[in-house]
Amino acid sequence: MFRLDTAFLRTSHPIAALRLCAARLQDDSRWPWIVLVPRVEGALEIDDLGEVDQVQLMREIVLAGAAVRAVGFMLGVAVDKLNVGLLGNITPQLHAHVVGRRADDPAWPGPVWGAGEATPYSEAALTRAIGAAENALRR
Amino acid sequence: MFRLDTAFLRTSHPIAALRLCAARLQDDSRWPWIVLVPRVEGALEIDDLGEVDQVQLMREIVLAGAAVRAVGFMLGVAVDKLNVGLLGNITPQLHAHVVGRRADDPAWPGPVWGAGEATPYSEAALTRAIGAAENALRR
Repeated sequence: MFRLDTAFLRTSHPIAALRLCAARLQDDSRWPWIVLVPRVEGALEIDDLGEVDQVQLMREIVLAGAAVRAVGFMLGVAVDKLNVGLLGNITPQLHAHVVGRRADDPAWPGPVWGAGEATPYSEAALTRAIGAAENALRR
Repeated sequence: MFRLDTAFLRTSHPIAALRLCAARLQDDSRWPWIVLVPRVEGALEIDDLGEVDQVQLMREIVLAGAAVRAVGFMLGVAVDKLNVGLLGNITPQLHAHVVGRRADDPAWPGPVWGAGEATPYSEAALTRAIGAAENALRR
């Protein structure tokens, strides 16, 4: 019965189905950025998940961090810091953002959420970014 | 050898020592807001923690969410949504923010980080807020 909120379809592309989450690449080439959406119907907050799923979400956040670093490497930008955010003020379906930040990025040191307009990937770069993320998530 | 970054001493007040983290109340009465700092020397990213500590961090984030709701209740504001963020762009020592948001708060639906200036608690409200948080964290 789980259905991905259509907001994610508009702003991101599928990378992989992890054990708990749909992993998606945010279509904003300003930052290597993965969105994780637990496939649990009706979950809005972390504590809407059972304890096993909460632990799995943490595992997948750490895994997505490695994938974000891999996407950054592919884009030719070093990730200085990972930012993790679970907000949901605009799209309430539970999801986690994992974003690679660098000291010269357009929003540093502020948060990426709500910062300017997304810069979509070119088709070629999107394919490469998804490939890099997919490889990293397989480990 | 763990030492709390002095930035936390300036901006927050101690609530409790959880198993992994120092739990602190952010001194900003605009939002019920708890900061968790794992007492692990040199940790900057989640994956600097061992797996057991990663799981414990998730547990304490969930626990802090309940405490944030309790502080909101004490302040007379309903928490509509929890926001969780691990950024560290300004203060690199690993820490998690757990913030209670409401649809009429001063930054909604944007993030709280970097939004305006903190409104410190009065002494009486601070004591009540810390008390409410401490009680909730004990459960």
